[in-house]
Amino acid sequence: MAGAAATDLDAMAAAPGQAQSALRINAARINGHLTELSQFGKNPQGGVSRVAYSEFDKEGRALVMRLMREAKLEVSVDTAGNIWGKRAGKQAGLKPIVIGSHIDSVPEGGNYDGDVGTLGAIEVARTLGEAGVTTRHPIDVVCWQNEEGGLYGSHAATDTMTAQELAGVSVSGKTIREGIIFLGGDPTKLDSARRKTGDVACYIELHIEQGGNLDKEKLNIGIVEGIVAIIRADVTVDGFANHAGTTAMAERHDALLAASRLVQAVNRIVTVKPGRQVGTVGRIQAFPGATNVVPGRVECTVELRDLDSDKLGQLMTEIRDEAARIGKMNGTTFTFRTSSTDHKAALSDPQVRGFIGQAAKALGFTTKLMPSGAGHDAQNMARIGPMGMIFIPSVGGISHSPKEYSTPKDIENGVNTLLHAVLLADAAYQER
Amino acid sequence: MAGAAATDLDAMAAAPGQAQSALRINAARINGHLTELSQFGKNPQGGVSRVAYSEFDKEGRALVMRLMREAKLEVSVDTAGNIWGKRAGKQAGLKPIVIGSHIDSVPEGGNYDGDVGTLGAIEVARTLGEAGVTTRHPIDVVCWQNEEGGLYGSHAATDTMTAQELAGVSVSGKTIREGIIFLGGDPTKLDSARRKTGDVACYIELHIEQGGNLDKEKLNIGIVEGIVAIIRADVTVDGFANHAGTTAMAERHDALLAASRLVQAVNRIVTVKPGRQVGTVGRIQAFPGATNVVPGRVECTVELRDLDSDKLGQLMTEIRDEAARIGKMNGTTFTFRTSSTDHKAALSDPQVRGFIGQAAKALGFTTKLMPSGAGHDAQNMARIGPMGMIFIPSVGGISHSPKEYSTPKDIENGVNTLLHAVLLADAAYQER
Repeated sequence: MAGAAATDLDAMAAAPGQAQSALRINAARINGHLTELSQFGKNPQGGVSRVAYSEFDKEGRALVMRLMREAKLEVSVDTAGNIWGKRAGKQAGLKPIVIGSHIDSVPEGGNYDGDVGTLGAIEVARTLGEAGVTTRHPIDVVCWQNEEGGLYGSHAATDTMTAQELAGVSVSGKTIREGIIFLGGDPTKLDSARRKTGDVACYIELHIEQGGNLDKEKLNIGIVEGIVAIIRADVTVDGFANHAGTTAMAERHDALLAASRLVQAVNRIVTVKPGRQVGTVGRIQAFPGATNVVPGRVECTVELRDLDSDKLGQLMTEIRDEAARIGKMNGTTFTFRTSSTDHKAALSDPQVRGFIGQAAKALGFTTKLMPSGAGHDAQNMARIGPMGMIFIPSVGGISHSPKEYSTPKDIENGVNTLLHAVLLADAAYQER
Repeated sequence: MAGAAATDLDAMAAAPGQAQSALRINAARINGHLTELSQFGKNPQGGVSRVAYSEFDKEGRALVMRLMREAKLEVSVDTAGNIWGKRAGKQAGLKPIVIGSHIDSVPEGGNYDGDVGTLGAIEVARTLGEAGVTTRHPIDVVCWQNEEGGLYGSHAATDTMTAQELAGVSVSGKTIREGIIFLGGDPTKLDSARRKTGDVACYIELHIEQGGNLDKEKLNIGIVEGIVAIIRADVTVDGFANHAGTTAMAERHDALLAASRLVQAVNRIVTVKPGRQVGTVGRIQAFPGATNVVPGRVECTVELRDLDSDKLGQLMTEIRDEAARIGKMNGTTFTFRTSSTDHKAALSDPQVRGFIGQAAKALGFTTKLMPSGAGHDAQNMARIGPMGMIFIPSVGGISHSPKEYSTPKDIENGVNTLLHAVLLADAAYQER
């Protein structure tokens, strides 16, 4: 707190001491660890297919546990299958500062989504250990299981999982229940993995942006204001299947013609309003799906995202109204079913945003306050305590793709920001 | 030719004698046989799934052979797997009049498409036999194999099949080659199944309309002017897959948004011109096809049909030009690949149309000259001799569906028209 040299970090309220403010993570090491992790599930396109509950997932997790041990963390797997690497604090009774992310990927994914935040959190702990820094609060490094499939690990750690959720089938082919067992958890004892409101000092997750804003604006660090709400609908369009050769154009009730009008309506309704909301039809299938049959049924999805849940509700209502009008045009009917994967916006904690902003500024980084359009485990952790997220640039905004890329320098910047945000939080929280 | 009573049939040029003009098929019997055939591959929706080369197909064909024998036909299976039931003529050296259709169905098909024409042709032969009528020409009743999969039986009977065609996989899971063997044919000896130009006096096929024109206009019989040309394209739309939450609307290259514009362009371009042409996008799939990913690629089909092949070429060119414009709107590219299933229009023979029209008129039926929007084995038979087709109404125009239906009365009318068209052809052709 009372160092000799006047640094930016010294100038902060409740700033760590000078020795701590000069701390930097080992950039070569974290980037080397990322390369090491990229071998598990490596695909020919240069990315990774390491879906949760696969053998590759298990192998990647073994590496995570080895790296945690090398960072002198006390390693355990909770009953939900999450990996924890714990580091004790020096002040008794304080709640842990939790940092981490996930290492499972989408099929044909990249090497940065989740990996940077997980290995970055381990690097932060290792840096502290090497510098002989013991924080006031315990630091818990976490590697959540099955983020990509639906944030299952953090969900189990913050809420009750239903039997239906446990019976759901993951991309690996295993049910969530089987997956948890596969990873060394115990789905019959999930209670012991659950943390309650107040059980953590705060949660900070480092992640790639997965969008192109930071890259396009040439900014170093994104300070996440919150994770957007999502509403989804499974849509069925019912028309009438008929022979594509013998059915005159005027006699058709073509479900795909109607669905194509819906796809355009979603785009138009979402873009016509000012704001950052997005709307996507990502999945579509026509039935019976033959070249020579007028589609009698189409199934598709509509997904809307924004920080403002009310706005999403209004947009979905407009889309449904427009769908009804489209259906009248050619005698087809639209059915919208709300999806179980909807979720509300999760705002980050203003104080944690402050720690991240102060840390970035002290490190000389440019920053931007921005929403996260993607879902993250952080949104579950926001249920039980203050949450913050640090974004680093994704080159070209590409994510969930083998072409996903963040530069070694940006990764270094992000992990250093995480390190100092943790130190600021550790100093600032005045419990006890 | 010189009957006592003046009937309509007597008034025709080269008309059969009065005894023959009074001939009528047995309506109860043909409709009973249709019910009998409907048991093989019967599905819960009330239709039939009797795809070519399935066990149900084999069972249905066994019934066809039994009914042919009951009709005193000489039954054989050619090397291409087609069933023939032959009836000798009384004048040596004349070529056969060929009548028939198919009994295989699409998956979840109905009980009239193909069945009416096959069992109707057997009924015609049986009626002639019971009346002791021996025609001048031999009459060959045929049941073509695998019509629905691509007119394979009639194709093999009129043209050379390529190794690639034989290796194609049918809906049954069997290749065409395996299917032919399964039905008792010999794919190594297809030459002996092949008929050449001039080998038949004419070919007449009775079939349900599969469209709603006759039903809507309350007409009895359609006289087919030809089978439409088809051009098809497999279309790929390439955009860029990206995260549906983090990719701003303006940054997207959404392949499905572009494809939806194509679906509408096909509809608009086809309907804006006068004429009976039809255009269909029957199949569509977005990749990767997840709710939360902006589609990076879409695959779909475009199919156009009309009696005028040139018009189809012009329409496809307009559609491709429009697709290029659509692609420019959001940075996507369209690739059109011509399909191997294109075919040219096959016009029916004016004289055979005349036999059908005269027969229908004499029987007191209303008629309409119309194109066939659907493909039929008749288009292959048109390669080697005069071809004609008789349509009966499809209730509501429904086909390729368990809801496909033609009334027993319309079936009776169609088979009587076939009977008398055959007699008129038999009397008219003056070979030798």
